[in-house]
Amino acid sequence: MVKTLCPKDYAEALYVGHFFRTGVPVVMDLSRLPDSEARQFVDFAAGLVFGRGGDMDRLSPKVFLLMPHGRSNRPAAPAESSR
Amino acid sequence: MVKTLCPKDYAEALYVGHFFRTGVPVVMDLSRLPDSEARQFVDFAAGLVFGRGGDMDRLSPKVFLLMPHGRSNRPAAPAESSR
Repeated sequence: MVKTLCPKDYAEALYVGHFFRTGVPVVMDLSRLPDSEARQFVDFAAGLVFGRGGDMDRLSPKVFLLMPHGRSNRPAAPAESSR
Repeated sequence: MVKTLCPKDYAEALYVGHFFRTGVPVVMDLSRLPDSEARQFVDFAAGLVFGRGGDMDRLSPKVFLLMPHGRSNRPAAPAESSR
């Protein structure tokens, strides 16, 4: 399971943190936010990932994948890529 | 032991994370940074604290104490307050 979040304000950083902390990969779609607030989410997420271990990958300019420590961000069946 | 850090650029957020992660309380003095960069440190630290547990307290407008989970930020002998 991957949780996709499209926060509309900074208070929703807590949801990002909540799911990440429970080991759920989070797609953080910041495309609804102005750049200044998107930046805050990225910095918050950087701290989260640094604190707990894991990875943050940029999927598109304002979409990020946060992968908790111990979860692979490789596809489960890499041999069979989807079209 | 408390580690005091006076970062001069955002790359030094890693030091904040490093000490906090190893259980050392960190005083993060952001007074040398412009507001925009100070804000980044605060957001990074918020993620760090949220991720690992602990507390962040503002000591002055640009100085913060990050207390790792399990460390008390109360004085050791609360009955005897300093003069």
